[in-house]
Amino acid sequence: MHTQNYIHQHRERFLQELCDFLRIPSVSTQPQHAADVQKAAQFVQQKLLSAGCDQSILITTKKYPLCYAEKIIDPKLPTILVYGHYDVQPIAPAHLWTHPPFEPIIRDGKIYARGASDDKGQLYLQIKAIETMIANHCLPCNVKFLVEGEEESGSESIIQFLSEKKNQDLVQADIILISDTTLLAKDLPSISISTRGITYVELTLTTAKRDLHSGLYGGAVANPIQTLCHIISQLKDPLHKITIPGFYDNVQTLSQSARNVIQAAPFDTDAFQTSIGALAVGEVGYTTPERVGARPALDINGIWGGYIEAGAKTVLPAQAHAKFSIRLVPNQTIEEIEHKLCQYLHHLTPTWAKLDINIHSGGGNAIFFDHQQKCFQAASLAFAEVWGNQPFWTRGGGSLPVITQFKEKLGLDCVLMGFGLPSDAVHAPDEHFHLDHFFKGMTTVIAFYQHFVRSTS
Amino acid sequence: MHTQNYIHQHRERFLQELCDFLRIPSVSTQPQHAADVQKAAQFVQQKLLSAGCDQSILITTKKYPLCYAEKIIDPKLPTILVYGHYDVQPIAPAHLWTHPPFEPIIRDGKIYARGASDDKGQLYLQIKAIETMIANHCLPCNVKFLVEGEEESGSESIIQFLSEKKNQDLVQADIILISDTTLLAKDLPSISISTRGITYVELTLTTAKRDLHSGLYGGAVANPIQTLCHIISQLKDPLHKITIPGFYDNVQTLSQSARNVIQAAPFDTDAFQTSIGALAVGEVGYTTPERVGARPALDINGIWGGYIEAGAKTVLPAQAHAKFSIRLVPNQTIEEIEHKLCQYLHHLTPTWAKLDINIHSGGGNAIFFDHQQKCFQAASLAFAEVWGNQPFWTRGGGSLPVITQFKEKLGLDCVLMGFGLPSDAVHAPDEHFHLDHFFKGMTTVIAFYQHFVRSTS
Repeated sequence: MHTQNYIHQHRERFLQELCDFLRIPSVSTQPQHAADVQKAAQFVQQKLLSAGCDQSILITTKKYPLCYAEKIIDPKLPTILVYGHYDVQPIAPAHLWTHPPFEPIIRDGKIYARGASDDKGQLYLQIKAIETMIANHCLPCNVKFLVEGEEESGSESIIQFLSEKKNQDLVQADIILISDTTLLAKDLPSISISTRGITYVELTLTTAKRDLHSGLYGGAVANPIQTLCHIISQLKDPLHKITIPGFYDNVQTLSQSARNVIQAAPFDTDAFQTSIGALAVGEVGYTTPERVGARPALDINGIWGGYIEAGAKTVLPAQAHAKFSIRLVPNQTIEEIEHKLCQYLHHLTPTWAKLDINIHSGGGNAIFFDHQQKCFQAASLAFAEVWGNQPFWTRGGGSLPVITQFKEKLGLDCVLMGFGLPSDAVHAPDEHFHLDHFFKGMTTVIAFYQHFVRSTS
Repeated sequence: MHTQNYIHQHRERFLQELCDFLRIPSVSTQPQHAADVQKAAQFVQQKLLSAGCDQSILITTKKYPLCYAEKIIDPKLPTILVYGHYDVQPIAPAHLWTHPPFEPIIRDGKIYARGASDDKGQLYLQIKAIETMIANHCLPCNVKFLVEGEEESGSESIIQFLSEKKNQDLVQADIILISDTTLLAKDLPSISISTRGITYVELTLTTAKRDLHSGLYGGAVANPIQTLCHIISQLKDPLHKITIPGFYDNVQTLSQSARNVIQAAPFDTDAFQTSIGALAVGEVGYTTPERVGARPALDINGIWGGYIEAGAKTVLPAQAHAKFSIRLVPNQTIEEIEHKLCQYLHHLTPTWAKLDINIHSGGGNAIFFDHQQKCFQAASLAFAEVWGNQPFWTRGGGSLPVITQFKEKLGLDCVLMGFGLPSDAVHAPDEHFHLDHFFKGMTTVIAFYQHFVRSTS
């Protein structure tokens, strides 16, 4: 219980430091904040050093530095690599914040600021956890930190970094620990054991060499928007299945035991529908958590063409455009799916139209972790000890390129030990983080270190 | 031949006056040109007076004045009402003009300026035609002018004006004469005997109360863009027929004689396709001129939803939008079609989406003129006399609200005696008008007056 006393004694300082961190407007997508993002990197580097790391350095990249730190107590002991990010989302729409987003305040047990939950608050509890263990001489293994500043803008630099052998050697570890996700709900801890892959595609359909007058030409030449809509309407069938030939060839059938794991996590369809004002609609034969976590999806992310301002313009446009993404599940590869998709799209394109397909870089395959592994069992024990409940194993529907890279380049699984809540308003106005989660998170992380090392010995 | 001599003698003055008219940047859609539009109205009023009209007045409206003028030589004689407009389109894209758009120049027998063909040059030849007839004491009937300044921005004031009984009495005539269209090609005179009706509709489809993350929700809720595309794809069948139930109920079958008239006008499919870089595609069983002039059409004019800027954003949007227009043919009414359309759109909307339909004002029914009437035969004789060729009867695919109003409010047909060419670049950079068409147009108009009065006596 020394660690609990330490956390209690330093509670105010920990909060003040977190506020200092949150005051830095490190918005990585906005060039006007470039100096702020650099400042946040230095802040993390300094705090890792003062937490007791042997070394803490900033590694220059093409854009924002990676902060690497380590505390090696014995090369023969296991090593945990902690990942996090010091950059934040833009504040837009700014007028909807009830308090300035970079002037953190504490209200009703929550700290409000951009980045409070995603990811500064969660990264900082990891830093304070190792400070606590080092100060109390109970760090049971080696620890490394790799913290990036481009998570909200594509993670390009860390992906480049991880592709080089010498860097892979530098950050090599036994397991990766990340606090950048949420619990299922308050007092319902959960650990996500999967992410979906993604490929992002942009289409341009051209039917004429210039825009035409819809009176003088309407009915006599094809309309590219109509044609694009017809193509898009053929990407799914009435049962909400994706119709790309061969699309499901490599999709693993969801076993009954896997379904049982998913079903064990509480899910309230009514609450789900009410929270977003939408009906639960999807692939026939699957529940909502299965559709999100264990089945592929295809979504149109944007469409545009012709006249889109106020009023009427009778234009028959020359082009129409769409952006869409496909979420993949394990055993599907982006190469396979992109190939099948392109073939099908060209097949659907009529003679009167020219189709250009632009596949964005940055796609990646799905990841699935076996929760029977020691590291996940250790995480489960840590949650049970601190929260009184064992965590549910959930499947995340999003795509985290960094996790895919960690798996593919380092061969490592990630324990996603997040302490946010779905209601934290990340990426939105009035983002906040529950203070008890900040401190209970620290305690849980410390418990995880102990259980993990015990499980490996 | 007095009139020919007069035109020849005053040729330079006529051109200088036209240049003065073209120098006024009377762009009616742009508020910064409000004073210029007023100046153009005064110019027309003055020139109608100096041409010999008994009176020429400006009638105040909510926006730009209507210029009304008349020369009544004998109330027992027929009356021709000449319509035209003194406003012009904006000059954008300005950088593509090879010469300043409001500094008219003459090059290779053409006069270049915004409005040269649409409609200042064509309106001015009508004014110079009556000046010539009055000066040579050969005006054979009464003439009235009604010239508006909002043709390029919705014609709202003239439509309002024509809805009042006292104004209908003021402008009452036997026939309306308009020079605001084109010949089929150089030395191929033509007269358009129809316009299509139009209804313009905007759709908003809502599936959620806020934008969602396509990773966290993709596959579990409906995508509004996908849903909208599916609705749009069901508005036409593979034979390019419109699928709204009952849509063709009142469409007149095209008789063989009507098809013969359309087919008589030369049409080169290859040239048509090359000029716009598009394939001729449309309703099976009809030629391109029939599809444009004699069959209804449905065109998506704009579509938008989700993320439409550069790069990738994995959003599952809450809404998607489209604008589209339906071109109607005679016997279809906008009330009937709008009713059937709305019913069908709601029928196509699935349970998970909310559809809002906004029908724009300003729609109108189709117009069709019987070219066997005396006024059209008189126009044919006038063309044959001056151009050496009888005009072809063509069917226009566009919609001209003013013509519909003239028919519905005054019960009058319009002789569309245009002297532009399809290559005049109206609404585009380097708009121009052939000078020989300017002068031959005057002569044709004078010949029309004589033939028309002869045909009615």
